[in-house]
Amino acid sequence: MTRYRLAVEYDGTPYVGWQWQDNGRSVQQALEEALTAFCGETQRVQCAGRTDAGVHATHQVVHVDLSRDWRPDKVRDATNAHLKLQGDGVAVTAAEVVDETFDARHSAVRRHYLYRILNRRPQPALERNRVWHVPRVLDAAAMHQAAQLLLGSHDFTTFRAADCQAASPVRTLERLDVERIGEEIRIFASARSFLHHQVRSMAGTLELVGAGKWVPQDVREALDARERARCGPMAPSAGLYLIGVDYKAAGKAEDDVL
Amino acid sequence: MTRYRLAVEYDGTPYVGWQWQDNGRSVQQALEEALTAFCGETQRVQCAGRTDAGVHATHQVVHVDLSRDWRPDKVRDATNAHLKLQGDGVAVTAAEVVDETFDARHSAVRRHYLYRILNRRPQPALERNRVWHVPRVLDAAAMHQAAQLLLGSHDFTTFRAADCQAASPVRTLERLDVERIGEEIRIFASARSFLHHQVRSMAGTLELVGAGKWVPQDVREALDARERARCGPMAPSAGLYLIGVDYKAAGKAEDDVL
Repeated sequence: MTRYRLAVEYDGTPYVGWQWQDNGRSVQQALEEALTAFCGETQRVQCAGRTDAGVHATHQVVHVDLSRDWRPDKVRDATNAHLKLQGDGVAVTAAEVVDETFDARHSAVRRHYLYRILNRRPQPALERNRVWHVPRVLDAAAMHQAAQLLLGSHDFTTFRAADCQAASPVRTLERLDVERIGEEIRIFASARSFLHHQVRSMAGTLELVGAGKWVPQDVREALDARERARCGPMAPSAGLYLIGVDYKAAGKAEDDVL
Repeated sequence: MTRYRLAVEYDGTPYVGWQWQDNGRSVQQALEEALTAFCGETQRVQCAGRTDAGVHATHQVVHVDLSRDWRPDKVRDATNAHLKLQGDGVAVTAAEVVDETFDARHSAVRRHYLYRILNRRPQPALERNRVWHVPRVLDAAAMHQAAQLLLGSHDFTTFRAADCQAASPVRTLERLDVERIGEEIRIFASARSFLHHQVRSMAGTLELVGAGKWVPQDVREALDARERARCGPMAPSAGLYLIGVDYKAAGKAEDDVL
Protein backbone atom coordinates (compact mmCIF):
# COMPACT_ATOMS: atom_id res chain seq x y z
CA MET A 1 0.00 0.00 0.00
CA THR A 2 1.10 3.56 -0.71
CA ARG A 3 -0.05 6.37 1.56
CA TYR A 4 -1.05 9.68 -0.03
CA ARG A 5 -1.50 12.99 1.66
CA LEU A 6 -4.04 15.23 -0.08
CA ALA A 7 -4.97 18.87 0.44
CA VAL A 8 -8.69 19.40 -0.18
CA GLU A 9 -10.72 22.57 -0.79
CA TYR A 10 -14.50 22.56 -0.48
CA ASP A 11 -17.63 24.65 -0.37
CA GLY A 12 -19.44 23.16 2.62
CA THR A 13 -22.84 24.63 1.68
CA PRO A 14 -24.43 21.59 -0.01
CA TYR A 15 -22.98 18.98 2.37
CA VAL A 16 -24.07 17.50 5.70
CA GLY A 17 -20.50 18.03 6.89
CA TRP A 18 -17.19 16.24 6.42
CA GLN A 19 -18.22 12.87 7.79
CA TRP A 20 -20.56 10.24 6.31
CA GLN A 21 -24.13 10.72 7.56
CA ASP A 22 -27.40 8.95 6.94
CA ASN A 23 -29.26 12.18 6.22
CA GLY A 24 -27.39 13.46 3.18
CA ARG A 25 -24.22 13.75 1.19
CA SER A 26 -20.93 14.42 2.97
CA VAL A 27 -17.64 15.80 1.68
CA GLN A 28 -15.99 12.53 2.66
CA GLN A 29 -18.49 10.61 0.53
CA ALA A 30 -17.87 12.88 -2.47
CA LEU A 31 -14.11 12.43 -2.16
CA GLU A 32 -14.21 8.67 -1.54
CA GLU A 33 -16.57 8.11 -4.47
CA ALA A 34 -14.27 10.09 -6.76
CA LEU A 35 -11.26 8.06 -5.59
CA THR A 36 -13.15 4.81 -6.20
CA ALA A 37 -14.26 5.97 -9.64
CA PHE A 38 -10.67 6.67 -10.58
CA CYS A 39 -8.81 3.69 -9.13
CA GLY A 40 -11.48 1.06 -8.47
CA GLU A 41 -10.60 0.74 -4.79
CA THR A 42 -12.90 1.60 -1.92
CA GLN A 43 -10.69 3.19 0.71
CA ARG A 44 -11.50 5.32 3.73
CA VAL A 45 -9.91 8.76 3.87
CA GLN A 46 -8.88 10.15 7.24
CA CYS A 47 -9.02 13.93 7.71
CA ALA A 48 -7.28 16.39 10.01
CA GLY A 49 -10.43 18.20 11.11
CA ARG A 50 -14.03 17.01 10.79
CA THR A 51 -16.03 20.06 9.75
CA ASP A 52 -19.76 20.53 10.39
CA ALA A 53 -22.51 21.03 7.82
CA GLY A 54 -22.01 24.29 5.92
CA VAL A 55 -18.41 24.78 7.09
CA HIS A 56 -15.84 25.34 4.31
CA ALA A 57 -12.20 24.44 3.82
CA THR A 58 -9.52 26.09 1.75
CA HIS A 59 -7.02 23.54 3.04
CA GLN A 60 -8.30 20.38 4.69
CA VAL A 61 -5.67 17.62 4.88
CA VAL A 62 -6.43 13.91 4.47
CA HIS A 63 -4.53 10.69 4.03
CA VAL A 64 -5.58 7.60 2.09
CA ASP A 65 -3.91 4.28 1.29
CA LEU A 66 -4.03 2.91 -2.25
CA SER A 67 -2.74 -0.49 -3.30
CA ARG A 68 -1.25 0.74 -6.58
CA ASP A 69 1.71 3.07 -6.71
CA TRP A 70 0.21 5.99 -8.64
CA ARG A 71 2.09 9.19 -9.32
CA PRO A 72 0.72 11.83 -6.88
CA ASP A 73 -0.27 14.27 -9.64
CA LYS A 74 -2.21 11.43 -11.30
CA VAL A 75 -4.12 10.87 -8.05
CA ARG A 76 -4.86 14.59 -7.82
CA ASP A 77 -5.92 15.10 -11.44
CA ALA A 78 -7.92 11.88 -11.84
CA THR A 79 -9.78 12.43 -8.56
CA ASN A 80 -10.54 16.00 -9.62
CA ALA A 81 -11.85 14.83 -12.98
CA HIS A 82 -14.43 12.66 -11.17
CA LEU A 83 -15.24 15.39 -8.64
CA LYS A 84 -15.95 17.70 -11.59
CA LEU A 85 -18.24 15.09 -13.17
CA GLN A 86 -20.14 14.85 -9.87
CA GLY A 87 -20.60 18.62 -10.07
CA ASP A 88 -19.46 18.85 -6.49
CA GLY A 89 -17.80 21.81 -4.84
CA VAL A 90 -14.78 19.74 -3.83
CA ALA A 91 -11.26 19.86 -5.30
CA VAL A 92 -7.97 18.15 -4.45
CA THR A 93 -5.43 20.98 -4.52
CA ALA A 94 -2.27 18.97 -3.76
CA ALA A 95 -1.14 15.35 -3.46
CA GLU A 96 2.06 13.71 -2.30
CA VAL A 97 3.32 10.32 -1.17
CA VAL A 98 3.99 10.16 2.56
CA ASP A 99 5.46 7.67 4.98
CA GLU A 100 2.99 5.18 6.47
CA THR A 101 3.57 6.79 9.87
CA PHE A 102 1.86 9.97 8.64
CA ASP A 103 -1.68 10.27 9.93
CA ALA A 104 -3.70 13.31 8.83
CA ARG A 105 -5.52 13.44 12.15
CA HIS A 106 -3.08 12.18 14.74
CA SER A 107 0.14 13.68 13.30
CA ALA A 108 -1.35 17.18 13.15
CA VAL A 109 0.22 19.58 15.63
CA ARG A 110 -1.82 22.69 14.81
CA ARG A 111 -5.12 23.54 13.11
CA HIS A 112 -5.88 26.98 11.65
CA TYR A 113 -9.39 28.33 11.17
CA LEU A 114 -10.74 31.58 9.74
CA TYR A 115 -14.13 32.99 10.67
CA ARG A 116 -15.54 35.65 8.29
CA ILE A 117 -18.17 38.24 9.26
CA LEU A 118 -19.68 40.60 6.67
CA ASN A 119 -20.37 43.68 8.78
CA ARG A 120 -22.71 45.98 6.82
CA ARG A 121 -26.44 46.62 6.68
CA PRO A 122 -27.13 45.12 3.22
CA GLN A 123 -27.13 41.35 3.06
CA PRO A 124 -24.39 39.59 1.08
CA ALA A 125 -25.15 38.88 -2.58
CA LEU A 126 -21.86 37.55 -3.94
CA GLU A 127 -20.78 36.13 -0.55
CA ARG A 128 -24.03 34.34 0.32
CA ASN A 129 -23.25 31.15 2.30
CA ARG A 130 -19.63 32.31 2.66
CA VAL A 131 -19.90 34.74 5.59
CA TRP A 132 -21.95 35.49 8.70
CA HIS A 133 -23.94 38.63 7.94
CA VAL A 134 -24.00 40.97 10.95
CA PRO A 135 -25.83 44.24 10.14
CA ARG A 136 -25.08 46.08 13.40
CA VAL A 137 -21.78 47.95 13.57
CA LEU A 138 -19.02 45.94 15.28
CA ASP A 139 -15.90 47.26 16.97
CA ALA A 140 -13.19 44.89 15.74
CA ALA A 141 -10.57 46.38 18.09
CA ALA A 142 -12.73 45.56 21.14
CA MET A 143 -13.29 42.04 19.77
CA HIS A 144 -9.54 41.58 19.36
CA GLN A 145 -8.92 42.83 22.91
CA ALA A 146 -11.46 40.36 24.29
CA ALA A 147 -10.02 37.54 22.17
CA GLN A 148 -6.62 37.96 23.83
CA LEU A 149 -8.20 37.03 27.19
CA LEU A 150 -8.93 33.54 25.80
CA LEU A 151 -5.34 32.71 24.78
CA GLY A 152 -3.46 29.96 26.55
CA SER A 153 -4.50 26.70 28.23
CA HIS A 154 -7.99 26.72 29.74
CA ASP A 155 -11.02 24.59 30.43
CA PHE A 156 -13.16 25.70 27.45
CA THR A 157 -16.41 24.11 28.68
CA THR A 158 -18.22 27.42 28.06
CA PHE A 159 -17.29 27.31 24.37
CA ARG A 160 -17.94 23.60 23.81
CA ALA A 161 -20.94 21.91 22.18
CA ALA A 162 -23.16 19.89 24.49
CA ASP A 163 -22.46 16.81 22.34
CA CYS A 164 -18.67 17.29 22.22
CA GLN A 165 -16.96 13.88 22.43
CA ALA A 166 -13.53 15.07 23.62
CA ALA A 167 -12.25 13.42 26.82
CA SER A 168 -11.04 16.72 28.24
CA PRO A 169 -12.42 20.28 27.88
CA VAL A 170 -8.90 21.72 28.24
CA ARG A 171 -7.37 23.20 25.10
CA THR A 172 -4.47 25.55 24.40
CA LEU A 173 -5.51 28.47 22.21
CA GLU A 174 -2.39 29.78 20.47
CA ARG A 175 -3.88 32.52 18.32
CA LEU A 176 -7.17 34.40 18.24
CA ASP A 177 -6.75 37.55 16.17
CA VAL A 178 -9.60 39.80 15.03
CA GLU A 179 -9.07 42.29 12.22
CA ARG A 180 -11.27 44.46 10.02
CA ILE A 181 -10.69 44.66 6.27
CA GLY A 182 -13.25 47.09 4.88
CA GLU A 183 -16.73 45.63 5.42
CA GLU A 184 -15.33 42.32 6.60
CA ILE A 185 -14.16 41.18 10.02
CA ARG A 186 -11.81 38.21 10.08
CA ILE A 187 -11.12 36.07 13.11
CA PHE A 188 -8.05 33.81 12.90
CA ALA A 189 -7.91 30.94 15.38
CA SER A 190 -5.04 28.46 15.85
CA ALA A 191 -4.57 25.60 18.29
CA ARG A 192 -3.27 22.05 18.40
CA SER A 193 -6.92 21.01 18.43
CA PHE A 194 -10.32 22.54 19.10
CA LEU A 195 -13.42 21.33 20.92
CA HIS A 196 -16.61 20.76 18.93
CA HIS A 197 -18.14 24.16 18.00
CA GLN A 198 -15.36 26.00 19.84
CA VAL A 199 -14.46 28.48 17.08
CA ARG A 200 -18.11 29.30 16.29
CA SER A 201 -18.88 29.64 20.01
CA MET A 202 -15.98 32.04 20.47
CA ALA A 203 -16.94 34.00 17.32
CA GLY A 204 -20.53 34.40 18.49
CA THR A 205 -19.36 35.58 21.89
CA LEU A 206 -16.87 38.05 20.43
CA GLU A 207 -19.70 39.48 18.31
CA LEU A 208 -21.43 40.54 21.55
CA VAL A 209 -18.28 42.46 22.48
CA GLY A 210 -18.10 44.04 19.03
CA ALA A 211 -21.70 45.21 19.36
CA GLY A 212 -21.02 46.71 22.79
CA LYS A 213 -23.36 44.29 24.60
CA TRP A 214 -20.44 42.81 26.51
CA VAL A 215 -17.15 44.31 27.64
CA PRO A 216 -14.00 42.23 27.04
CA GLN A 217 -13.82 41.17 30.68
CA ASP A 218 -17.26 39.52 30.34
CA VAL A 219 -15.70 37.05 27.90
CA ARG A 220 -13.05 36.12 30.42
CA GLU A 221 -15.68 35.68 33.12
CA ALA A 222 -17.74 33.46 30.82
CA LEU A 223 -14.61 31.33 30.22
CA ASP A 224 -13.87 31.09 33.94
CA ALA A 225 -17.47 30.08 34.71
CA ARG A 226 -17.02 26.84 32.70
CA GLU A 227 -20.72 26.82 31.91
CA ARG A 228 -22.14 26.36 28.42
CA ALA A 229 -25.04 28.66 29.34
CA ARG A 230 -22.59 31.58 29.70
CA CYS A 231 -21.56 31.35 26.03
CA GLY A 232 -22.89 33.88 23.50
CA PRO A 233 -25.12 32.68 20.63
CA MET A 234 -23.13 30.34 18.39
CA ALA A 235 -22.06 31.93 15.09
CA PRO A 236 -23.45 30.22 11.94
CA SER A 237 -21.46 27.59 10.05
CA ALA A 238 -21.29 29.54 6.76
CA GLY A 239 -18.58 31.90 8.06
CA LEU A 240 -16.14 29.17 9.14
CA TYR A 241 -13.18 27.92 7.08
CA LEU A 242 -10.50 25.34 7.87
CA ILE A 243 -7.50 27.08 6.28
CA GLY A 244 -4.52 24.94 7.22
CA VAL A 245 -2.97 22.17 9.27
CA ASP A 246 0.61 21.95 10.56
CA TYR A 247 2.54 18.69 10.91
CA LYS A 248 5.81 18.01 12.58
CA ALA A 249 7.90 15.72 10.45
CA ALA A 250 10.72 13.70 12.01
CA GLY A 251 13.09 16.37 13.26
CA LYS A 252 11.46 19.35 11.54
CA ALA A 253 8.40 21.51 11.90
CA GLU A 254 6.40 21.86 8.73
CA ASP A 255 4.06 24.70 7.92
CA ASP A 256 1.06 23.81 5.86
CA VAL A 257 -1.01 26.95 6.09
CA LEU A 258 -2.45 28.76 3.11
CA MET B 1 -41.46 62.12 -8.36
CA THR B 2 -38.18 61.65 -6.49
CA ARG B 3 -35.23 60.11 -8.30
CA TYR B 4 -33.06 57.61 -6.42
CA ARG B 5 -29.64 56.39 -7.34
CA LEU B 6 -28.91 52.87 -6.07
CA ALA B 7 -25.74 50.82 -5.99
CA VAL B 8 -26.49 47.14 -6.54
CA GLU B 9 -24.44 44.00 -5.92
CA TYR B 10 -25.41 40.67 -7.46
CA ASP B 11 -24.37 37.12 -8.11
CA GLY B 12 -25.21 36.73 -11.80
CA THR B 13 -25.16 32.91 -11.73
CA PRO B 14 -28.91 32.20 -11.42
CA TYR B 15 -30.04 35.02 -13.73
CA VAL B 16 -30.58 35.36 -17.48
CA GLY B 17 -28.69 38.66 -17.24
CA TRP B 18 -29.54 42.19 -16.14
CA GLN B 19 -32.41 42.80 -18.51
CA TRP B 20 -35.93 41.32 -18.57
CA GLN B 21 -36.09 38.23 -20.78
CA ASP B 22 -38.79 35.78 -21.72
CA ASN B 23 -36.64 32.76 -20.93
CA GLY B 24 -35.99 33.27 -17.23
CA ARG B 25 -35.51 35.54 -14.29
CA SER B 26 -33.38 38.68 -14.66
CA VAL B 27 -31.63 40.83 -12.06
CA GLN B 28 -33.80 43.77 -13.17
CA GLN B 29 -36.93 41.71 -12.51
CA ALA B 30 -35.71 40.73 -9.02
CA LEU B 31 -34.96 44.36 -8.17
CA GLU B 32 -38.18 45.80 -9.64
CA GLU B 33 -40.31 43.17 -7.88
CA ALA B 34 -38.65 43.99 -4.57
CA LEU B 35 -39.23 47.72 -5.11
CA THR B 36 -42.89 47.07 -5.94
CA ALA B 37 -43.31 44.84 -2.90
CA PHE B 38 -41.96 47.59 -0.69
CA CYS B 39 -43.65 50.72 -2.09
CA GLY B 40 -46.54 49.44 -4.19
CA GLU B 41 -45.39 51.19 -7.34
CA THR B 42 -44.29 49.48 -10.52
CA GLN B 43 -41.35 51.49 -11.82
CA ARG B 44 -38.67 50.67 -14.34
CA VAL B 45 -35.09 50.88 -13.14
CA GLN B 46 -32.42 52.10 -15.55
CA CYS B 47 -28.90 50.68 -15.14
CA ALA B 48 -25.42 51.89 -16.08
CA GLY B 49 -24.31 48.65 -17.72
CA ARG B 50 -26.51 45.77 -18.89
CA THR B 51 -24.67 42.61 -17.89
CA ASP B 52 -25.09 39.22 -19.61
CA ALA B 53 -26.27 35.97 -18.06
CA GLY B 54 -23.82 34.77 -15.40
CA VAL B 55 -21.98 38.11 -15.15
CA HIS B 56 -21.68 39.57 -11.63
CA ALA B 57 -21.63 43.06 -10.19
CA THR B 58 -20.09 44.39 -7.01
CA HIS B 59 -21.23 47.88 -7.96
CA GLN B 60 -23.90 48.27 -10.63
CA VAL B 61 -25.57 51.70 -10.58
CA VAL B 62 -29.27 52.26 -11.33
CA HIS B 63 -31.78 55.06 -11.04
CA VAL B 64 -35.48 54.80 -10.34
CA ASP B 65 -38.28 57.33 -9.83
CA LEU B 66 -40.72 56.90 -6.95
CA SER B 67 -43.78 59.06 -6.36
CA ARG B 68 -43.34 59.18 -2.61
CA ASP B 69 -40.47 60.96 -0.94
CA TRP B 70 -38.89 58.07 1.01
CA ARG B 71 -35.70 58.43 3.00
CA PRO B 72 -32.90 56.82 0.92
CA ASP B 73 -31.90 54.38 3.67
CA LYS B 74 -35.55 53.29 3.90
CA VAL B 75 -35.52 52.54 0.16
CA ARG B 76 -32.29 50.54 0.58
CA ASP B 77 -33.35 48.57 3.65
CA ALA B 78 -36.94 47.86 2.60
CA THR B 79 -35.88 46.75 -0.87
CA ASN B 80 -33.23 44.51 0.67
CA ALA B 81 -35.78 42.96 3.03
CA HIS B 82 -37.84 41.88 0.01
CA LEU B 83 -34.78 40.72 -1.92
CA LYS B 84 -33.87 38.54 1.06
CA LEU B 85 -37.40 37.07 1.14
CA GLN B 86 -37.05 36.23 -2.56
CA GLY B 87 -33.86 34.37 -1.65
CA ASP B 88 -32.13 36.18 -4.49
CA GLY B 89 -28.44 36.96 -4.77
CA VAL B 90 -29.14 40.67 -5.15
CA ALA B 91 -28.52 43.46 -2.61
CA VAL B 92 -28.85 47.24 -2.69
CA THR B 93 -25.61 48.46 -1.12
CA ALA B 94 -26.28 52.22 -1.25
CA ALA B 95 -29.13 54.65 -1.99
CA GLU B 96 -29.29 58.41 -2.35
CA VAL B 97 -31.62 61.03 -3.76
CA VAL B 98 -30.35 62.57 -7.00
CA ASP B 99 -31.36 65.37 -9.30
CA GLU B 100 -33.82 64.43 -12.06
CA THR B 101 -31.08 65.14 -14.61
CA PHE B 102 -29.09 62.16 -13.30
CA ASP B 103 -29.38 59.15 -15.60
CA ALA B 104 -27.59 55.96 -14.54
CA ARG B 105 -26.89 55.05 -18.14
CA HIS B 106 -26.48 58.34 -20.00
CA SER B 107 -24.70 60.32 -17.28
CA ALA B 108 -22.00 57.68 -16.82
CA VAL B 109 -18.58 58.78 -17.99
CA ARG B 110 -16.63 55.61 -17.18
CA ARG B 111 -17.37 51.93 -16.52
CA HIS B 112 -14.97 49.64 -14.65
CA TYR B 113 -14.90 45.87 -15.06
CA LEU B 114 -12.83 43.14 -13.45
CA TYR B 115 -12.19 39.78 -15.08
CA ARG B 116 -10.99 36.99 -12.76
CA ILE B 117 -9.09 33.89 -13.91
CA LEU B 118 -8.25 31.05 -11.51
CA ASN B 119 -4.97 29.78 -12.93
CA ARG B 120 -4.20 26.38 -11.40
CA ARG B 121 -4.73 22.76 -12.35
CA PRO B 122 -7.42 21.87 -9.78
CA GLN B 123 -10.88 23.23 -10.51
CA PRO B 124 -12.35 25.87 -8.19
CA ALA B 125 -14.42 24.58 -5.28
CA LEU B 126 -15.14 27.73 -3.26
CA GLU B 127 -14.97 30.01 -6.32
CA ARG B 128 -17.22 27.95 -8.62
CA ASN B 129 -19.20 30.29 -10.91
CA ARG B 130 -17.02 33.20 -9.76
CA VAL B 131 -13.94 32.76 -11.96
CA TRP B 132 -12.80 31.37 -15.30
CA HIS B 133 -10.81 28.24 -14.56
CA VAL B 134 -7.70 28.03 -16.76
CA PRO B 135 -5.54 24.99 -15.87
CA ARG B 136 -2.60 25.76 -18.17
CA VAL B 137 0.07 28.09 -16.77
CA LEU B 138 -0.40 31.69 -17.90
CA ASP B 139 2.25 34.41 -18.10
CA ALA B 140 0.47 37.44 -16.63
CA ALA B 141 3.32 39.80 -17.54
CA ALA B 142 3.00 38.88 -21.23
CA MET B 143 -0.78 39.34 -21.00
CA HIS B 144 -0.28 42.79 -19.49
CA GLN B 145 2.20 43.72 -22.22
CA ALA B 146 -0.28 42.67 -24.91
CA ALA B 147 -3.11 44.51 -23.15
CA GLN B 148 -1.25 47.80 -23.44
CA LEU B 149 -1.40 47.50 -27.24
CA LEU B 150 -5.21 47.82 -27.04
CA LEU B 151 -5.27 51.09 -25.10
CA GLY B 152 -6.65 54.22 -26.74
CA SER B 153 -9.30 54.86 -29.39
CA HIS B 154 -9.77 52.08 -31.92
CA ASP B 155 -12.29 50.30 -34.07
CA PHE B 156 -12.89 47.27 -31.80
CA THR B 157 -14.84 45.22 -34.38
CA THR B 158 -12.56 42.22 -33.65
CA PHE B 159 -13.64 42.24 -29.99
CA ARG B 160 -17.35 42.88 -30.56
CA ALA B 161 -20.24 40.44 -30.46
CA ALA B 162 -21.92 39.72 -33.79
CA ASP B 163 -25.22 40.97 -32.31
CA CYS B 164 -23.77 44.18 -30.82
CA GLN B 165 -26.28 47.01 -31.24
CA ALA B 166 -23.85 49.93 -30.89
CA ALA B 167 -23.90 52.43 -33.76
CA SER B 168 -20.12 52.66 -33.90
CA PRO B 169 -17.42 50.02 -33.22
CA VAL B 170 -15.02 52.74 -32.03
CA ARG B 171 -14.31 52.83 -28.31
CA THR B 172 -11.61 54.42 -26.16
CA LEU B 173 -10.00 51.90 -23.82
CA GLU B 174 -8.54 53.82 -20.88
CA ARG B 175 -7.20 50.97 -18.78
CA LEU B 176 -6.46 47.29 -19.36
CA ASP B 177 -4.20 46.02 -16.59
CA VAL B 178 -3.34 42.38 -15.96
CA GLU B 179 -1.89 41.28 -12.64
CA ARG B 180 -1.28 38.00 -10.85
CA ILE B 181 -2.19 37.56 -7.18
CA GLY B 182 -1.18 34.04 -6.19
CA GLU B 183 -3.28 31.56 -8.19
CA GLU B 184 -5.50 34.31 -9.58
CA ILE B 185 -5.04 36.59 -12.59
CA ARG B 186 -7.05 39.81 -12.54
CA ILE B 187 -7.77 41.93 -15.59
CA PHE B 188 -9.01 45.47 -14.90
CA ALA B 189 -10.73 47.24 -17.81
CA SER B 190 -11.99 50.84 -17.84
CA ALA B 191 -13.63 52.89 -20.60
CA ARG B 192 -16.44 55.39 -21.09
CA SER B 193 -18.38 52.47 -22.58
CA PHE B 194 -17.74 49.03 -23.96
CA LEU B 195 -19.09 47.10 -26.95
CA HIS B 196 -21.15 43.97 -26.32
CA HIS B 197 -18.84 41.12 -25.19
CA GLN B 198 -15.79 43.39 -25.50
CA VAL B 199 -14.22 42.63 -22.11
CA ARG B 200 -14.78 38.86 -22.41
CA SER B 201 -13.43 38.91 -25.98
CA MET B 202 -10.31 40.76 -24.88
CA ALA B 203 -9.87 38.43 -21.86
CA GLY B 204 -10.14 35.33 -24.04
CA THR B 205 -7.60 36.74 -26.48
CA LEU B 206 -5.16 37.73 -23.74
CA GLU B 207 -5.39 34.17 -22.39
CA LEU B 208 -3.84 32.98 -25.69
CA VAL B 209 -0.91 35.32 -25.04
CA GLY B 210 -0.60 34.10 -21.44
CA ALA B 211 -0.44 30.50 -22.69
CA GLY B 212 2.26 31.36 -25.24
CA LYS B 213 0.02 30.57 -28.24
CA TRP B 214 0.13 34.20 -29.35
CA VAL B 215 2.79 36.87 -28.94
CA PRO B 216 1.61 40.33 -27.81
CA GLN B 217 1.91 41.73 -31.35
CA ASP B 218 -0.66 39.16 -32.57
CA VAL B 219 -3.25 40.90 -30.39
CA ARG B 220 -2.49 44.23 -32.04
CA GLU B 221 -2.73 42.65 -35.47
CA ALA B 222 -6.07 41.09 -34.58
CA LEU B 223 -7.30 44.53 -33.50
CA ASP B 224 -6.08 46.17 -36.69
CA ALA B 225 -7.73 43.48 -38.83
CA ARG B 226 -11.20 44.59 -37.60
CA GLU B 227 -12.53 41.08 -38.13
CA ARG B 228 -14.51 39.14 -35.53
CA ALA B 229 -12.94 35.93 -36.78
CA ARG B 230 -9.52 37.14 -35.62
CA CYS B 231 -10.65 37.27 -31.96
CA GLY B 232 -9.57 34.56 -29.51
CA PRO B 233 -12.25 32.34 -27.91
CA MET B 234 -14.55 34.46 -25.76
CA ALA B 235 -13.92 34.07 -22.02
CA PRO B 236 -16.89 32.72 -20.00
CA SER B 237 -19.31 35.03 -18.22
CA ALA B 238 -18.62 33.69 -14.70
CA GLY B 239 -15.29 35.57 -14.43
CA LEU B 240 -16.71 39.02 -15.26
CA TYR B 241 -17.69 41.66 -12.67
CA LEU B 242 -18.99 45.21 -13.11
CA ILE B 243 -17.11 46.90 -10.25
CA GLY B 244 -17.89 50.59 -10.62
CA VAL B 245 -19.27 53.48 -12.64
CA ASP B 246 -18.03 57.08 -12.67
CA TYR B 247 -20.33 60.08 -13.12
CA LYS B 248 -19.43 63.66 -13.73
CA ALA B 249 -21.62 65.93 -11.66
CA ALA B 250 -22.10 69.56 -12.63
CA GLY B 251 -18.61 70.99 -12.32
CA LYS B 252 -17.00 68.04 -10.57
CA ALA B 253 -15.77 64.57 -11.38
CA GLU B 254 -17.10 61.92 -9.08
CA ASP B 255 -15.47 58.58 -8.45
CA ASP B 256 -17.78 55.71 -7.76
CA VAL B 257 -15.48 52.74 -7.94
CA LEU B 258 -15.27 50.08 -5.26
